[in-house]
Amino acid sequence: MREVAIVGAATTRFGELWDKSLRDIGLESGMRALVDANLETEDVQALFLGNMSAGRFIQQEHIGALIADHAGLADRGVPATRVEAGGASGGLALHQAFTAIASGLHDVVMVGGAEKMTDVSDADAEETMSFAADQEWEVFFGASLASLYALMARRHMHEFGTTPEQLAHVAVKNHAHGSANPNAQFRNRLELEQVLGAGRVAEPLGMLDCSPISDGGAALVLTTLERARELADAPVVITGSAQASDTLALHDRWSFTSQRATRTAADRALAQSGRSIEDMDLMEVNDGFTIGEIIALEDLGLVEPGQGGRLAEEGVTALGGETPVNTSGGLKARGNPPGATGIAQVVEVYDQLLGRAEGRQVEGARSGLAQNVGGTGATVTVHVMEVA
Amino acid sequence: MREVAIVGAATTRFGELWDKSLRDIGLESGMRALVDANLETEDVQALFLGNMSAGRFIQQEHIGALIADHAGLADRGVPATRVEAGGASGGLALHQAFTAIASGLHDVVMVGGAEKMTDVSDADAEETMSFAADQEWEVFFGASLASLYALMARRHMHEFGTTPEQLAHVAVKNHAHGSANPNAQFRNRLELEQVLGAGRVAEPLGMLDCSPISDGGAALVLTTLERARELADAPVVITGSAQASDTLALHDRWSFTSQRATRTAADRALAQSGRSIEDMDLMEVNDGFTIGEIIALEDLGLVEPGQGGRLAEEGVTALGGETPVNTSGGLKARGNPPGATGIAQVVEVYDQLLGRAEGRQVEGARSGLAQNVGGTGATVTVHVMEVA
Repeated sequence: MREVAIVGAATTRFGELWDKSLRDIGLESGMRALVDANLETEDVQALFLGNMSAGRFIQQEHIGALIADHAGLADRGVPATRVEAGGASGGLALHQAFTAIASGLHDVVMVGGAEKMTDVSDADAEETMSFAADQEWEVFFGASLASLYALMARRHMHEFGTTPEQLAHVAVKNHAHGSANPNAQFRNRLELEQVLGAGRVAEPLGMLDCSPISDGGAALVLTTLERARELADAPVVITGSAQASDTLALHDRWSFTSQRATRTAADRALAQSGRSIEDMDLMEVNDGFTIGEIIALEDLGLVEPGQGGRLAEEGVTALGGETPVNTSGGLKARGNPPGATGIAQVVEVYDQLLGRAEGRQVEGARSGLAQNVGGTGATVTVHVMEVA
Repeated sequence: MREVAIVGAATTRFGELWDKSLRDIGLESGMRALVDANLETEDVQALFLGNMSAGRFIQQEHIGALIADHAGLADRGVPATRVEAGGASGGLALHQAFTAIASGLHDVVMVGGAEKMTDVSDADAEETMSFAADQEWEVFFGASLASLYALMARRHMHEFGTTPEQLAHVAVKNHAHGSANPNAQFRNRLELEQVLGAGRVAEPLGMLDCSPISDGGAALVLTTLERARELADAPVVITGSAQASDTLALHDRWSFTSQRATRTAADRALAQSGRSIEDMDLMEVNDGFTIGEIIALEDLGLVEPGQGGRLAEEGVTALGGETPVNTSGGLKARGNPPGATGIAQVVEVYDQLLGRAEGRQVEGARSGLAQNVGGTGATVTVHVMEVA
């Protein structure tokens, strides 16, 4: 297997993009990534695209061909593959693209993620998000993603004494980070009291514990390390790429306070890269709901189970802290178009490792990790990146 | 890259499976394929799944995890990846699975396709099928897949003198083939007059020129040729696997009577395998509409452009003819659950190459090809298989 490097990365602005369609969003992020890589459309040999539910959101399937066509890749018959795993669609697309380069099948691959959620009502968008959970055994009976994550939060509080304030600190931190990200959906800072006082969505989670409904796209250009050295002074290498599954329904899990697929994927990706979690200078993880970030950091091994609540509270995961987490603003503040999220996380790590994350730069960052979660944890991808 | 072999294959019955859900269908086809391969669930290292539109059909996304979970693969965190490209979703899943084995990433991979269409009304199912065409530039203005293929048929008649009888012969032939396939949705034979006299859907295509709405699943177990030799006396090797894109909308194509992505994918797959189209003893191709099979055989190079109409008419592509096409019954008679079709085609070729296609066996078949089309041709995969 060959070493795989990132040579270009970009996102659109995330938010309610009323003037842009899914094809616009896909095209814009892809073209920006190509320009960033100093490459041409003609260099792209394959396209992988993460998208969760365009069939529901814009009555369009066949999303790989849609974007390939509008990106000018169809004339040469460039293979285009859409992959889907709820909110992990982007990370999954990246894993496929990584494999395509590592295997020698292709030399330059575009991988993107895009979602257009705001063409349907908020209620329809939220309903569709729940399709990443188990329709037959959870959603049919009234469960939503928010209520399922609320169960995890309740149990975490019960077992470990985690507090509503600790949950709220995750949102406060990530909004503070997002305020420095020009592409973030929300750039407003939050006070702890605002988060605690916001309307309840599913106890103990309030409105400001939840990531928003978002439109947006993100894209990366991947190539071999060899080729990357010709294109860039200090290429960023994907040293670990792994994916794992768990049961679709939460009630079938061995634990409500741990997402096992994160552990499995992280073990694989870190072993591949020959690194430990302590080596990571920064991380982007799933904070679709505030409890998600706490559980993610425990499962990744940054702290012992039950200790995640103190991290945001004590500033460990804030910019300037020991291990900054979600410097992009995370799903919470940057926004969460499910197909794009997993790619946008890697774009942030890439920008950080290149030292160009203006206003939110982690000084001297040499390695980073991105963890992308679908549904309540039935699919997780973990990617480890390092400056070559 | 390593050589990739098929060691197990199965489909469910195709049809209106009122008593089965998508998870049942996916599980049944996968388990049958595993039994066929003499392997256990524990041997499966990754799952790839083709599915077009479960979000629309059963309000469920995250399909990879759904099937992995119910197949007992989630306990070990086995990676599960759903891919989508309209009716080419199955072929695309196979191409990903092929790459996973060829690259050395995995040694035993399950690849399946499944769709459950009959939980919604026929009108909703037909509307959803059109999501494989261009929503913004075709479907919004009233086009359906049938009306777009009708345009191709009209143009083919105009340019080459193809007749309604020649279209009808494709349906008559494929129903005759399907009558011998115990898993086919339709096992009734058709008379030419029935096809020509059936209610018109989109002139010149009538009801019996169109494939049905279907539930069904299909699965294959892939491994390395080396491992396959331990499991089987005469393994079937995938000697070519390729995928190509074209514009999503029909009006952007260079021709209405040719699907360029078929040419590109076939060129690549045949070159990989070191074979020509004349070497193929049988083929499964896209006959979602009768004109599709005629165009497919021209683009694959079996005959010159414009000459495809005579093939079914003259018996060339019938069982006992020179190159039997769609011995399974094709999409027309076997049925067309879009996620499953591309895998079911390969299951048929595999059964033929093993000499176990009872009642419809192509004597002495040593090599075969499967062509899988999404929408009106924006995604095409071609796979070439041979007895090792």
